[in-house]
Amino acid sequence: MATSSRFAASSRWASLPYRAPSRFNRIRPAVQIRWAGTTSATSEPHQPNAEGGVKRGTVPAKTIKYTSETYPDLKRESKFAKVTPEHVDYFGKLLGTEAALIEGLSKDASEDIEPFNSDWMRKFRGHTKLVLKPQSTEEVSKILKYCNDNMLAVVPQGGNTGLVGGSVPVFDEIVINLQRLNNIHSFDDVSGILVADAGVILEIADNFLAEKNHIFPLDLGAKGSCQIGGNVATNAGGLRLLRYGSLHGNVLGIEAVLSDGTIVDDLSTLRKNNTGYDLKQLFIGAEGTIGIITKISIICPRRSPAINVAYFGVESYEKLQEAFKEAKSQLSEILSAFEMMDGRTQKIVNQVTGKKMPLEGDYPFYCLIETSGSNPDHDGEKLQAFLEHVMENEIVSDGVLAESQTQIQDLWAYREGITECLGHWGGVYKYDLSLPIASLYDMVNDVRDRLTKAGLIGNGESYPVVDVVGYGHMGDANLHLNIPTRRFDKEVEKQLEPYVYEWVKSKNGSISAEHGLGVTKKPYIGYSKSETMIKLMKQIKNLYDPNGIMNPYKYI
Amino acid sequence: MATSSRFAASSRWASLPYRAPSRFNRIRPAVQIRWAGTTSATSEPHQPNAEGGVKRGTVPAKTIKYTSETYPDLKRESKFAKVTPEHVDYFGKLLGTEAALIEGLSKDASEDIEPFNSDWMRKFRGHTKLVLKPQSTEEVSKILKYCNDNMLAVVPQGGNTGLVGGSVPVFDEIVINLQRLNNIHSFDDVSGILVADAGVILEIADNFLAEKNHIFPLDLGAKGSCQIGGNVATNAGGLRLLRYGSLHGNVLGIEAVLSDGTIVDDLSTLRKNNTGYDLKQLFIGAEGTIGIITKISIICPRRSPAINVAYFGVESYEKLQEAFKEAKSQLSEILSAFEMMDGRTQKIVNQVTGKKMPLEGDYPFYCLIETSGSNPDHDGEKLQAFLEHVMENEIVSDGVLAESQTQIQDLWAYREGITECLGHWGGVYKYDLSLPIASLYDMVNDVRDRLTKAGLIGNGESYPVVDVVGYGHMGDANLHLNIPTRRFDKEVEKQLEPYVYEWVKSKNGSISAEHGLGVTKKPYIGYSKSETMIKLMKQIKNLYDPNGIMNPYKYI
Repeated sequence: MATSSRFAASSRWASLPYRAPSRFNRIRPAVQIRWAGTTSATSEPHQPNAEGGVKRGTVPAKTIKYTSETYPDLKRESKFAKVTPEHVDYFGKLLGTEAALIEGLSKDASEDIEPFNSDWMRKFRGHTKLVLKPQSTEEVSKILKYCNDNMLAVVPQGGNTGLVGGSVPVFDEIVINLQRLNNIHSFDDVSGILVADAGVILEIADNFLAEKNHIFPLDLGAKGSCQIGGNVATNAGGLRLLRYGSLHGNVLGIEAVLSDGTIVDDLSTLRKNNTGYDLKQLFIGAEGTIGIITKISIICPRRSPAINVAYFGVESYEKLQEAFKEAKSQLSEILSAFEMMDGRTQKIVNQVTGKKMPLEGDYPFYCLIETSGSNPDHDGEKLQAFLEHVMENEIVSDGVLAESQTQIQDLWAYREGITECLGHWGGVYKYDLSLPIASLYDMVNDVRDRLTKAGLIGNGESYPVVDVVGYGHMGDANLHLNIPTRRFDKEVEKQLEPYVYEWVKSKNGSISAEHGLGVTKKPYIGYSKSETMIKLMKQIKNLYDPNGIMNPYKYI
Repeated sequence: MATSSRFAASSRWASLPYRAPSRFNRIRPAVQIRWAGTTSATSEPHQPNAEGGVKRGTVPAKTIKYTSETYPDLKRESKFAKVTPEHVDYFGKLLGTEAALIEGLSKDASEDIEPFNSDWMRKFRGHTKLVLKPQSTEEVSKILKYCNDNMLAVVPQGGNTGLVGGSVPVFDEIVINLQRLNNIHSFDDVSGILVADAGVILEIADNFLAEKNHIFPLDLGAKGSCQIGGNVATNAGGLRLLRYGSLHGNVLGIEAVLSDGTIVDDLSTLRKNNTGYDLKQLFIGAEGTIGIITKISIICPRRSPAINVAYFGVESYEKLQEAFKEAKSQLSEILSAFEMMDGRTQKIVNQVTGKKMPLEGDYPFYCLIETSGSNPDHDGEKLQAFLEHVMENEIVSDGVLAESQTQIQDLWAYREGITECLGHWGGVYKYDLSLPIASLYDMVNDVRDRLTKAGLIGNGESYPVVDVVGYGHMGDANLHLNIPTRRFDKEVEKQLEPYVYEWVKSKNGSISAEHGLGVTKKPYIGYSKSETMIKLMKQIKNLYDPNGIMNPYKYI
């Protein structure tokens, strides 16, 4: 399996011809930011950009706690059968022994079953003894029909880069891994429509599209490992959403298999198709609980030849909102990212990496603005006008503009390096929230006040909490609330939950903006959805998976 | 009820400050196109831009044929109760007599029940004796619960501007008209998110947004009459889809009422919300068959200060595809429309209106390109570079560029006037199809050959068919196949159907790109959806509307 690059930025623009907007050197160029530890890979098999509502610990490889121990309330459902030699025999005949990986019995001795049982964060671990790797939709269909007939629970698994434990078993569910379903079927360079198997790795799809001068309308840090089927199943958000919109708009068709083996053949390659209920939408974000996505068709935009990145210091959250409004207005059709970072996150990056900050002064807030357009000169002029406006009107206090591909990466690294640096002290309590933009940062202040009053934040080893910080995709009103800690602590957890979820509910926000429910947020869906909505969701689950074999113990 | 403007263009740009891109006069300016008959309103109460798979006839107002006569296979289902005085009493007490319009009993004598029984094309006519106009979601809920308990069938009705007979009763179904549910609830000018009632007229919503410097991400000819709830219920496509994408991506939340009165409270105002199945998507395009949409929240883009329109003559369909690819590449982020018209449609507009064509030569194909951007100078330069490229490389043969708001409207009128002019000889057989772009126009040629071979096309009165023409939203691969006729003729119909549908099926196209199924396409869904998909759709219908009271005799 391919290893993802540590910082999305470095792979993201690699294939784009970059033209430095040299006229902008009135604002001082971006400092050269390089720090130790950002180029060497960790021992983790996958390294997605972890920003979600999970604890990121430092557990050694051999001691990953079983999910069933971390969540003792989860009990194996007795209705599910246990895998028998007869079942194994069926799958072996259906798929061949290489594609049916059985603990202790795999032909390929180098392939251990354990990576399929645990996640890249080493937070979740299941007990499966059987991993199946189908190579066709028909095989997926036969597997599911057999499992449904025999009451065998299953977990669909893509690149296994999720943050909420959705893609690994809790007990002995059979893993259905999509990695062998990895063909790109067609690309139409007039319409921009790509058809590909669910198991195609996002970066491979994007590289394929780069050759055709298009991009995949989704980008995220885990692109080197995550699969497009998993992206669709979890309705991944990522870095391009502000510009290209959500997968609900971009995915044109889906082929999926229901629990009884029914193949949902809704693989339309048409931009418009008003012939009945848009059932494919149900699979987008269903996290494998009603079926397994086997193919997708998706509309892909043209690749932008011009990319610019600027980084600003801002005096207040109010001014940050003003800057966002101005960016939307003046950068308009070329704005492709508006990321917010509080001063605390940037100081932590500085402190952990020891590298110079992009700006000299200290500011409570920073933002990173990226533009992507078809004409470098025009984009440069728009950005220049925007810069002059926000500087002259004191909406921003200082700023730098990248003048080279390296500087672009360096500025992005001060945003994307946050996740890694926050783990410096031990663990991180992480929340991925959608909130109205106006109250986005109040959440961070309120949690900081709360933990301060409880005497849990401080500089010494006796304090469990290092700080409470906030950053995220401001363009999508998506806050990453993070609490770096020296150790996980029950007292801290009591202060955080359900307080954070209740706060989110009071603002009609979402407890999961882009990372889904999985195991970790299943108990908290009531904070974002009404009883009626949960009842209606359970109806859908029962309709498509009456035996409940699809990814049990998760979602709702 | 507001009357829609005859040509969408004239109202569409009215509130936009226009800056003429005066540097383009190397290409000759657009001719002043004005013709008789385009400024006076017809006697029709609504005048949407009719481009869908329907016959557009010239039936006088008093003689609209009942749908039950046009479609004799449709029989009233005996399971539905007939409206009794007791029912009327209930609704009268619930809503007040003004909001419960009963034939012959309405307090407001000026309000006739007949407009609610028939459509603006005068093609569909029902037998209802009861129209209800709720003013709140709670009233909608009580109405549906009562109807469901008493087996009374209903038809949800918005602006009644559809083209497939979806919004009028077939028999005596109670009309639930949303016109009184018409408040705009909120608009956030940072996020661009609007929350409004389903009965708000699209143009009113867009005018409201214009004041806030935003636009509704949907535009269509019927904007003066159609309601945003109806737009969402029919997943309307329209003129802005190429740029802003479909409603599946832009609608963030929906409040709807199910047949049993359950209020689906999924009115999220968050751009990202991954907390369970995205059930609201089922209501987008469901044509009122599983519930009534009462409120929507939708993300609205900034309004573009610069609009440019150019019109080209092209030698072949291959070159038209090249022009589209170049436009996508060079105009990229500012391209907002790419419309194709064959030479026959443009000659018909010329012939019927007697006005000079925008270009002097005769070409087999024409296209209209619109750009919308934030900087008039930049857009002008991009367009100039594009024009030079496509002229020098002989991708297009000739072109004009609008130099004023009037000229923009005039060029749009040569595209939008087609629908009206095609009706000149009597009636039009109309199909609204999605097809792969490469084979889009083959459909038109094949149908023309077929009718020619059958001896049905010609110049004299003895030939029923005048011509077979094609035009549409090339940017969305959406073809409007139109067959203007002197009279509707069984022999022509035999040649057209199921031939057209089989042809579409052979290319994996869609028999309804943007106009939905309604009454007219219900029998033909099998040409665009498999038996499995139809079975799954019927499951959804049965889940949400087990008694089948919601908009019966339609959809699937």
